[in-house]
This record gives sequence, structure tokens and C-alpha cells, in this order.
Amino acid sequence: MPRRIDLNSDMGESFGWFRHGVDEEVIDFITSANLACGFHGGDPGVMRRSVHLAKEHRVTVGAHPGFPDLMGFGRRNLSASPAEVKDYVTYQVGALQAFCRAAGLRLQHVKPHGALYMMALEDERLSEASVEAILELDEGLLLYTTGGTAAEDVARRKGVRVAREFFGDRPLHSRGWVMFGYSLADAGDGTPEGMARRVVQVATEGKTVTTDGKTIDFEVDTVCVHLDTPGAAQLIKTIRQALEAARVEVRAVGTDH
Amino acid sequence: MPRRIDLNSDMGESFGWFRHGVDEEVIDFITSANLACGFHGGDPGVMRRSVHLAKEHRVTVGAHPGFPDLMGFGRRNLSASPAEVKDYVTYQVGALQAFCRAAGLRLQHVKPHGALYMMALEDERLSEASVEAILELDEGLLLYTTGGTAAEDVARRKGVRVAREFFGDRPLHSRGWVMFGYSLADAGDGTPEGMARRVVQVATEGKTVTTDGKTIDFEVDTVCVHLDTPGAAQLIKTIRQALEAARVEVRAVGTDH
Amino acid sequence: MPRRIDLNSDMGESFGWFRHGVDEEVIDFITSANLACGFHGGDPGVMRRSVHLAKEHRVTVGAHPGFPDLMGFGRRNLSASPAEVKDYVTYQVGALQAFCRAAGLRLQHVKPHGALYMMALEDERLSEASVEAILELDEGLLLYTTGGTAAEDVARRKGVRVAREFFGDRPLHSRGWVMFGYSLADAGDGTPEGMARRVVQVATEGKTVTTDGKTIDFEVDTVCVHLDTPGAAQLIKTIRQALEAARVEVRAVGTDH
Amino acid sequence: MPRRIDLNSDMGESFGWFRHGVDEEVIDFITSANLACGFHGGDPGVMRRSVHLAKEHRVTVGAHPGFPDLMGFGRRNLSASPAEVKDYVTYQVGALQAFCRAAGLRLQHVKPHGALYMMALEDERLSEASVEAILELDEGLLLYTTGGTAAEDVARRKGVRVAREFFGDRPLHSRGWVMFGYSLADAGDGTPEGMARRVVQVATEGKTVTTDGKTIDFEVDTVCVHLDTPGAAQLIKTIRQALEAARVEVRAVGTDH
Repeated sequence: MPRRIDLNSDMGESFGWFRHGVDEEVIDFITSANLACGFHGGDPGVMRRSVHLAKEHRVTVGAHPGFPDLMGFGRRNLSASPAEVKDYVTYQVGALQAFCRAAGLRLQHVKPHGALYMMALEDERLSEASVEAILELDEGLLLYTTGGTAAEDVARRKGVRVAREFFGDRPLHSRGWVMFGYSLADAGDGTPEGMARRVVQVATEGKTVTTDGKTIDFEVDTVCVHLDTPGAAQLIKTIRQALEAARVEVRAVGTDH
Repeated sequence: MPRRIDLNSDMGESFGWFRHGVDEEVIDFITSANLACGFHGGDPGVMRRSVHLAKEHRVTVGAHPGFPDLMGFGRRNLSASPAEVKDYVTYQVGALQAFCRAAGLRLQHVKPHGALYMMALEDERLSEASVEAILELDEGLLLYTTGGTAAEDVARRKGVRVAREFFGDRPLHSRGWVMFGYSLADAGDGTPEGMARRVVQVATEGKTVTTDGKTIDFEVDTVCVHLDTPGAAQLIKTIRQALEAARVEVRAVGTDH
Repeated sequence: MPRRIDLNSDMGESFGWFRHGVDEEVIDFITSANLACGFHGGDPGVMRRSVHLAKEHRVTVGAHPGFPDLMGFGRRNLSASPAEVKDYVTYQVGALQAFCRAAGLRLQHVKPHGALYMMALEDERLSEASVEAILELDEGLLLYTTGGTAAEDVARRKGVRVAREFFGDRPLHSRGWVMFGYSLADAGDGTPEGMARRVVQVATEGKTVTTDGKTIDFEVDTVCVHLDTPGAAQLIKTIRQALEAARVEVRAVGTDH
Repeated sequence: MPRRIDLNSDMGESFGWFRHGVDEEVIDFITSANLACGFHGGDPGVMRRSVHLAKEHRVTVGAHPGFPDLMGFGRRNLSASPAEVKDYVTYQVGALQAFCRAAGLRLQHVKPHGALYMMALEDERLSEASVEAILELDEGLLLYTTGGTAAEDVARRKGVRVAREFFGDRPLHSRGWVMFGYSLADAGDGTPEGMARRVVQVATEGKTVTTDGKTIDFEVDTVCVHLDTPGAAQLIKTIRQALEAARVEVRAVGTDH
């Protein structure tokens, strides 16, 4: 059976004169870009340029909406109500859709950012909020989230197609999801080659080893590497080459329908 | 010849817990609502509720994008570049389009807010920026601006349909445009009835009297009253009744095609 | 024994063109004003004007620092670290001290706002953060907080003088603290007279009745009424008159040393 | 006659997770640091860390208040009123004074940032606004500005001590002030050595060559190099060494009284 995988990165996270990320260095190695939409990073100019960069390199574009917390980069929990979350997703995804339309692109997916991503994994009402926003905007939009979570369940139940995500640069707890604030060095082999082997395993076998030493089943459609992981560009390149060496096709999720 | 006119107000300018405007009091008397899009006022929740309010009362919806100056309510000049202005318009209008789509509405027009509106009247490059953004988003969108200005010229040249605006609550200088920071009390009859007579004159005769006492030709498709003008609700009601008494049809601009 | 009490309100919460609160209507009835410092409300101009308003009416001034969440008015929990909280308090209190200095006033107290206030009641590390910030800024600053909480314990242990607060317009749970999102109408007598009786009881007897019907001891130095409680101006006036009728001296906390 | 000069850089301009500048690389070569105060860059955490960095390296600290334009890094003109400018300066300088007090330091100077600096050079009312804010905060504060301008005149007239600034990395127009948007490569010798020679000339002879080829008198107390000038760290090091080789004492302005 031919295996395939999408490689995604969070991009377009600069803001005004503030640079964040190494977008240009990785754009040739990834297949999907999750673009910040102005709340935790990104601004209108960054968004337009990021859409163009992705288009030029034939990378599919997704929206990466976050909490309105620029100072905390959207990585802090905020007790926003489901209605507020729905409004925030609609606003940010709508803004990015405008830049996509201007560039003649169609938005492929939505991947909530940071704390919004993490909180929705366990919180059904927050997940419903995001999914409802997506359905109102474009029923063809994919949701990028971690498989086996409330977020996946809600999306499937409501009819939103899910791309199940694996974080190539973050340990996974046996409870099933990514652990931020920990590096893979704390939890196994933190070299680019070690991380690449881990990605190839999950992509080819549907299995991965958790921080507490268990081997668990983990179906995955897309692999994420963060651009603020030290050595991100080299890491992504190494992962891509390892996947190709293992005859895994690296392709955007949305390109098969 | 049957005359017709659109009555518009800037609405949806509240932000978070901060209330601004008397939207509910005037919604039954206007025909178009220019909704703030988050930069000078408005937030995602306010935008969704404002779109619903307009829909419920059969008022057409326009976008009211402004400078990113919440502290100054978008009423201060900012030396943003044309590229920045284009990006700001795309972002804000795109976000509002998303809420319209979610409500099953189509956005009718774009009216730049405050300093962005005023600067574009004289600055061709800023006008081009807004018009280009509009064309990329939806070629059917109308631009609300003052007639006889660079803004109108640029829009017509580029193929964007213009609704020529008259400010029912602001004096007009013979140079041809609205004077903020002045009240009609300084420049004529500041009573609701006086302002209504002035609106009826411009709507039926295409003429108005300027602050410096000249009667000038002034073609107009839409009349604006600001909700922070003292007594705005009563003023709008009086204007509407005066127009109807003068057999001017009060109807949204975009409904005739 | 002569009883005395301070009456405080959160004030200066307007932002730019957005009005919030009825500061001018209540300033003659309160003895301390907690002024927003720009993060959840307030802006530099509002802060200067609010300090002047307080000075003119001989009302003592406190700082009301909040989370950087203007859209949520600082009323949403944010998982900021203690170090971040300390920095936020230092920044905001320092900014207000500057306006006080410019007006020839000394800042009397610090009262954390909204979610920051509530989170600190139970979270010792957040309370320590605020208290450390206070000590570095001015050792004479009082902390306004609810008595019998981690916040009070931490402050006393570190040597910061505490004014124990009672919310005149919010029910109290027997667990000991104020319940937001509930009105007194849900939990007793919601009339101004009813609320005033409740305040007089706590001020004179050191006892109050909780939402679950228990009468508990509750020592109190200051009583707060929120300006966004409907009828706030009338309510505060009624409370003040009831206190005076009960021969409770209404005076700022900080004026006795 | 022994010559002396201060070397200053704008620092602490990072915001949240967004890094800006190379503060750690230049701190050993400068004598004064102008710290961003949260409006155009800097946040409370960055401010505390920057004050500590400066203290540790015995660099004097100044405030670098800017317009509330994070997206434009305070480099865009904003038509704020003098009253607004005064309030913005008070707020930001007050916040930084708090972090200085916490660290046991006294703020040495105020240097308006970006567009606020440039606008004040010609606009007497804006200069008065800044100077009045300074006087209310601490009469001992120095103002860093360009000599021979309205800003200098106003400060001297009102009794604020001025440090006259020269931009080591920006061309100077014969009209007398710095030209942003131009590099020295456009206007002479853009190498570190060339720029250092230019600084040594102005420091030792009180003369400099303008973009239009004139040699003008230019008295200078402090030299600024921007950290976003390419190669800033090497440039500052080269300038410092050249000054010392020319027997110019490099010392903070405020240390001589």
C-alpha cells in the first residue's frame, strides 16, 4: 500500500517589523502552510506576502487562527466562551480567505493555533465552536487536529473532514497528545535524524513511542514541525528526505479529492 | 423624475464591553449599515451581531474598514503606505464578508472609515489601494465616498461603482467635502428639522449650501448620519420622514441592479 | 466603638472614544477610586483625567491593573505566569503613579482587576507576584482584596497592608468570595435599599449572609460597587446614605496613618 | 580640550515572542540604552529584563516612548494631539520608571521614538507636550533630540537639559536632521570604518558632511546607532574603538553632574 503524508508548518507569524520564523528556508520542503491571521501573529501585509510565498512554491494554504493574545503569542489559555471562539475563528479565517481569493487560491484547511488548539482537544464545546465556524465559511475546509480527541470526534460528527496531525518536534504523551514545553531531547532522540526516524515510523507503521515509553497506534495524515524549534530548517529537510527515502509520498492532504 | 436616496450609518462600533452608538434605535430608519471591522471599533462578536441585526431589519451591509488605531477610533491621520492600506482593507473587508456569508448575506459596499476616508479623498494612491482591494475581493462591491474627489475618479476609472455620499450632520466646505470637528450649529441650522431640510434639498435638487455660504451642485446617492452626533436617533428619524414627505424613495443603493 | 468603612469603585475604564462607567455621577459618594491602567480599559488620557477627577473630589486613588485583554475587559482567565503577572502589575501601576505624581497625588492602593483579582484569591504564586511588584514600587501601597484568601495571607506574610473588600453588588458564596455572573436579585434583595442594608450589616456587625443562606463572619475595610451594575449611581448614593444613617464613618482606608 | 561623547542605542524593542534587535551583542559597547516602553515595541517582561541587562553592564537607561502603533513600529506619522502625546509620554515613561525603581536605578533620559521623534523636531506643540510630561515626571531627566531644532529650543526654554544627538548610521540633510529611509551607502561611505570616521569627525570637530555635500557645524553630545541597521554590532564596536583611538572619552551624558 502506498503511504502518503502531508508536511505542515505554522508560518506567516511575523508582525509588523518583528520577524518570527524562517518561512523562506522551509517553504520548499513542506506541503502545507498554516498562516497566522493577525491575533497571535501575522498582520495584513504578512498575510498577503505569505499567501504569495505559498502559492509560488505550490504549498497549500491553511488558516491558523489563535486567541487575541499577541503578547503571549496565543500560547496561553484564555477562558473565552465557545461563542467568542466561534467569532474569532470566523473573523480570522475570513480575513485569510480574502487574501487567498485575491491570489486566486482556495483555502485548504483550518488549524487552530497554540492554546486554542490544545484547549479544543479536550473541550467539546470549543471544538464545536471552531467546527461550526468552518462549516459556515466553506464546507470543504479540512480541520487539522490531533486524532483520537474530542476535537476529531466533534468534527467527524458534524461532517468536517479531519487531517490527523503528528508533531515531529514535540513528544507525545501516552494519553495521546502533544506535550508543549518539552523537547524531544528530554524524551528520546533529539537529533534531526532521530526525529526523522520517529516521523517515518508514524507515517509508515501508524505507531509511535510516547514519553512514558509505550508504543501506541497513531494514525496520521500530516506532520507538523514548528519554525521556532532550533534548527527547524535542517530538521524539516531531514524529515522530508527520510520520508522520501522510505517511499512515503509527501503531498498536501487536500490534493486527493 | 422619481428621486431616491440611501440612508446610511456607521454601526457595529462597539468593542468588547465598550458600547458605542445607538444601533438598535436607528436600524429601522436607515437602509444601509457600514459595519466596523475590528481595527478602529467592532470586534468579531460585535460584527456577527451587527450583521444579524441588519439582516433582521432588511438593511444592506457594508464594510467600514479603518486604520489600526483603536485608541484614536481611526480618526487620526496615519502615514500608512498604499500597500499597507490595501492590506488593511482586504483584511477587514474579508473578515466581514465571512460574517455575511455565515448569515447568508452578500456584502453590498465598502466605506473607508474616518481618517482613511478623508485621506483617500485627496490622495490618489490611497484611493487606488482601497479600490484594488475591493476589486480583488468582489467586483460587485460599491464604494461609498464623496463625489467630485480623487476617490471617486479613481474608482470610476478602475471600474468600481460609486455611491456619492452626503453627510447629513456635518457642514460641507465649498471645496467640496465634509468638515469634521465642526457641527452644523456652527454653520447653519443645527436642529433636526433644519438638517432634514438640508438633506431633502440635496436629495431633490442636487444642491447644497456650503459653510462659506455658496450654493453648489452636489449629486448624492446616499446620506450618512453619525451615531455619535447628539440626538442621532431622533435626527435620523426626522430625516427619513422628511424625505418620505418629499416623495423621495429611501432605498439601499445596491438594490437597483 | 466607632465603625468606619471605605467606599470604592472601579473607575477610569473608558478607552479612547469608548465610554464605560458613570464616573462623574458617583465620584461624590465614594472615597476611593480604582483606576484602570490601560490593559483592560483606561488609556493615558483617561488616566490623567480620572486622576484629576479624583483629586478634585478628594477621592483617594488606587491602581486597577488587569490582564492585557481589552477585548474581554480583563474578565477572562489567562494562564499568564507569575513572572508575567508581576511585570504586568509593575508596568500598569508605574504608569498610573506617573499620572499621580504629575497631579501631586500619592497612589494609595492596588486592586487587581477582574480575572487577575479572582485568580489571585486562590493562587498563591499569582498573589506573590502582585505583592512583590507592589513592594518594589512603594512599600506603603495597600492591597485591596478579599479577606480570608490566599491573596490576603500572602500580602500579610510579605508585609503589605491589606484592605479587606466586600462587594456591595455581588453575592458572596459561603466559601468566602464574590460570585460574578450572578446578581443579588438571584440571591436575596436586589433593590438599592436591600443592598444598602446588606452593606450596613457587614460594616457594623462584621457578618453577612451568603448565597447558600449561611450567616458568616466577614471583616471588611472597604466596600465596592461596580459602575456597570444597573443603577450604580443610585445604588452607591443609597449605600452611602445608609452607612451614614447607621453612624458608620465613610472614609478612605489609607487616611488613618 | 578633552572631548567626550555618549553612545546610545534603541533597545528592548522585542515584544512577547517576537525578537527584535541584538541587545546582548552591543551592550558592552554603548553607554546609554533607550528602552522601548510597550507602545511601538517592548512589553513589561522585556522592559524588566532590559533594565537588568543595562544595570549589569553599567549602561544608563533612558525611556524611548513612541506612538501606539505596534504594527508600524511607531515609525508612521500619527496626527495625535499635543495633549495625547503628553499623555502617551507620561504613561510610557512612568511605566519604565517603575522598572528602574524596582531595579534600584534612576532613569537618565527620555528619547522619543521614530515618528514621534521626527515630528517633534519641527512641531513646537508636540515638543512642548513631551517636555511638559518630562518636567512633571522628574525635572532631572534629559531629553535626547537633534540640536538646532524646535525640539531643542522648546526644551531649553522650559528648562529641560538636552543631549544633542547624531545618528551614526543615517545621513544628515543640510537642513539639519537625520534622513530615515536612506542609508549611508547612498550618501557617502557605508562601511563600518567610514561610518566610524564620520562619528569621530563630528565628535572631535563638531562638523559633519551632509547628503548634499556641505560641511556643517553640528554640536553633539550623543551618537546613536540603530540595532536594525545591518551589521549593527560590528558597526558599534568599530565606532567605539575609533572614538577611543581618537582619545574621545565615551561616557553617558548624565554622569557628569
